[in-house]
Amino acid sequence: MLTLTVDLADRSYPIYIGNGLLDDELLAKHVHGRQVMIVSNETVAPLYLQRLVNQLADFSVDTLILPDGEKYKDLDHLNLIFDALLEKRHNRTTTLIALGGGVVGDMTGFAAASYQRGVNFIQVPTTLLSQVDSSVGGKTGVNHAKGKNMIGAFHQPVAVLADTGVLASLPERELSAGLAEVIKYGLIYDQEFFNWLEQNMDRLRAQNTEALTHAIYRACQIKAEVVAQDERESGIRALLNLGHTFGHAIETAQGYGTWLHGEAVGAGMLMAADLSARCGWLSSEDVERVRSLIVAAGLPVAAPADMTPDEFKQLMSVDKKVLDGRIRLVLMRAIGDALVTEAFDSKLLNETLGAGPRLGQL
Amino acid sequence: MLTLTVDLADRSYPIYIGNGLLDDELLAKHVHGRQVMIVSNETVAPLYLQRLVNQLADFSVDTLILPDGEKYKDLDHLNLIFDALLEKRHNRTTTLIALGGGVVGDMTGFAAASYQRGVNFIQVPTTLLSQVDSSVGGKTGVNHAKGKNMIGAFHQPVAVLADTGVLASLPERELSAGLAEVIKYGLIYDQEFFNWLEQNMDRLRAQNTEALTHAIYRACQIKAEVVAQDERESGIRALLNLGHTFGHAIETAQGYGTWLHGEAVGAGMLMAADLSARCGWLSSEDVERVRSLIVAAGLPVAAPADMTPDEFKQLMSVDKKVLDGRIRLVLMRAIGDALVTEAFDSKLLNETLGAGPRLGQL
Repeated sequence: MLTLTVDLADRSYPIYIGNGLLDDELLAKHVHGRQVMIVSNETVAPLYLQRLVNQLADFSVDTLILPDGEKYKDLDHLNLIFDALLEKRHNRTTTLIALGGGVVGDMTGFAAASYQRGVNFIQVPTTLLSQVDSSVGGKTGVNHAKGKNMIGAFHQPVAVLADTGVLASLPERELSAGLAEVIKYGLIYDQEFFNWLEQNMDRLRAQNTEALTHAIYRACQIKAEVVAQDERESGIRALLNLGHTFGHAIETAQGYGTWLHGEAVGAGMLMAADLSARCGWLSSEDVERVRSLIVAAGLPVAAPADMTPDEFKQLMSVDKKVLDGRIRLVLMRAIGDALVTEAFDSKLLNETLGAGPRLGQL
Repeated sequence: MLTLTVDLADRSYPIYIGNGLLDDELLAKHVHGRQVMIVSNETVAPLYLQRLVNQLADFSVDTLILPDGEKYKDLDHLNLIFDALLEKRHNRTTTLIALGGGVVGDMTGFAAASYQRGVNFIQVPTTLLSQVDSSVGGKTGVNHAKGKNMIGAFHQPVAVLADTGVLASLPERELSAGLAEVIKYGLIYDQEFFNWLEQNMDRLRAQNTEALTHAIYRACQIKAEVVAQDERESGIRALLNLGHTFGHAIETAQGYGTWLHGEAVGAGMLMAADLSARCGWLSSEDVERVRSLIVAAGLPVAAPADMTPDEFKQLMSVDKKVLDGRIRLVLMRAIGDALVTEAFDSKLLNETLGAGPRLGQL
C-alpha cells in the first residue's frame, strides 16, 4: 500500500492506494462520529457494500443505493441523500462515505458539503477514472438540465481509499478510459512518468497490482501538486484539461455516453499533440509516441469521421474554458511540459480539426 | 453612513449602514464582472428593485422575483435561481444580489455558494432582522421538509448594504422582531450597549436614522466579533442563540409564522433571564430591566398560556444545540455576560418553564 497526503493546510487528507483496502481497518479510523451513511449505486453496491459495512461494526451505519448513471446526477437525486440523512436523524458529526465512481463521489461529496452546512466524507472510488481524477481536487456537484457540473462546491474528503482490487470488476473499456487520464498526467507534467507508462502499459491493462498502485499514486500526486498550487482553479489547474476541450466537443456531438469521457479525452489529447506539432513545439516523433501510448491503452485515437472543423469549433466555443469568445487550449511544448494558450494560428487549429478523424492512421 | 469591516482574512467584507444606500454608487463598486442577477421577492421588488437597477447601468442586469415567504425557501425554489442563471448564460464572474429579508438572503447566498461552485454575492437586506442577523456570519441555505436550514453552505458576501430607509415600509411588528435580536447582542456581550438601548428604544421604534444606524452597526459589530472568533460555530458562537432554544419551542408549538421568530426570541430571552436568576447569577433587578426593555421594544414577554413544562422540554430536546440528550442553554451571569451551560438544576428549569406564561406580569 502507498499513502499520499494531499497538502491543503487544515483540510489535508490521505489517499491510500493498494489491493484489498475495502477490507482494511483504515476506513473506520477516519470516521470521527458515531453515524455513517454509505452512498453507492445499484451496480457497485451488490459487489462491495457489505465489505465496507463489515469494517464499520462499531458505528451506526445507514446505506443509500442510487440508480447508476450520469443522468441521475441531479438535484432530485441529491435530495434523496438529504431525505435519508434526515430520516435517519444524522447530525453534524455524521460521516458520508461515497462508494462508487465519479457520479457517486460528486453527489455524495456535494451532499456532505451542504448537509447542515458541511459534514465529513470519505471517498472509496471504484473506477480507475475516479481513483485518479475525481478523488483529488475537492470538486463536488450535480448537473443541471442546462449544463454539466453547474451546481456544486469545493469540499475536501477526510480520506480516500483507492482499492486496486475493485478494478477487476470494471469493464475493460472503462479501465482504458481511466488510463487516458493517467496518460494525461504524464503529458502535462512528467516526462519520466510518461516513459514509465510506455514501458508498463501492458502490466496496467493486465491489472498488475504493483503497476496500478504506482500509476494511481503518481497520477494523484501530480494532480495534488497542481491543485495545491491552485485550489480554486484560476491558473495552472487548467492544465488538467489537456484534451478535454476537443474531447467535450466529441462527447457532445456523439451524444453523452456514446463515447466514454476518457475515450474522448484520449482522442482529444492526440489532437492537442497534433496542433502542438503544427505550432512547431512538439516533434513528429513525440506525436507518434503520444499516439502509440493512447493506442496501447486501448483507446480510440481518431475523432469521429463525420465531425467537421466547423462542428468542432462551434462545440468548443461553448466550453467553460472560453473567455470572451477566444478558444484557449492546453497544448504541449514537449512531453511533460504543457501550457494554456490562445496564441496559436487559427489556420493551424483548422488543420488539426480537419485531420482529427484521420489521426489514428499512421 | 457607518462602515464596518467583517474581518475574515481573504474573505473580509464591508457592511455599509445608513439612510439611502439603495441609491448610492457603493453597490456598483462591489460588482467585479459584467453580469448581475438580482434576486428579490414579490413584496420587496415593487418597492425597491428599480432603484438598485438604476445603480447598475454599466452592467448586464437580470432579475428574478421569488414568491414571498419561508415556505418557499426550499430546493425547488433554489433551482429557479439556477434556471435563471443558466438561461441568461451567467458565467463564473457573475455577481448575485440578494434584495429582501432573511429568506431571500439565505437562498441567494446558497445559490451563489453553489453556482459553478461559487460566485460573488452582495446582500441588500430589507428587514431589521436580516440587517443585524443574517447579513453577518456567512450562513446560507434552504429548508428541507424534515428540518429547517438543513441544506446550505458557509459563504461570505463581498459586501452588505443595510439601508435604514427601507425599514419605513416594514410592518411595526417586524421592526420589533428585529429589535429582539438587537437586544440579544447587548445581553450576551455588551452591558453598555444594553444601557444605550434602554435610553434609545423610543427613537429606534420611531425610526430615527442616527439611532438605527448605531444600533445596526453595534449589533453587526458584536456578531462579527463573535463570528470571527468562531467561524464554523463550535464554541463562543453558540452565545448568539440566547433565547433561541426557548423561542424555537414556542415557534414550533404555535406553528411557524404564528409568532414571528423575533417575538419568540423575545419571550425566550426573558425565560433565559428568569432561569439565570433562579441559578443565582442574575439579580431580580436585572431580570426586570430585561423584561422592561423587551416590553419597550413592542415584544411579547410571556410564553403562550397553554404551553406546559413537558411540552417545552420535549420541543427543546430536539433542538440542534442538544448533545447526547442533555439540554444546553445560553444563560447570563450578568447583563452583557452570557455563557453556554448544561450546569443548571433541572428543577430550576422546570420552575422557569412553569412560570413562562406568567413572566409578563409584574
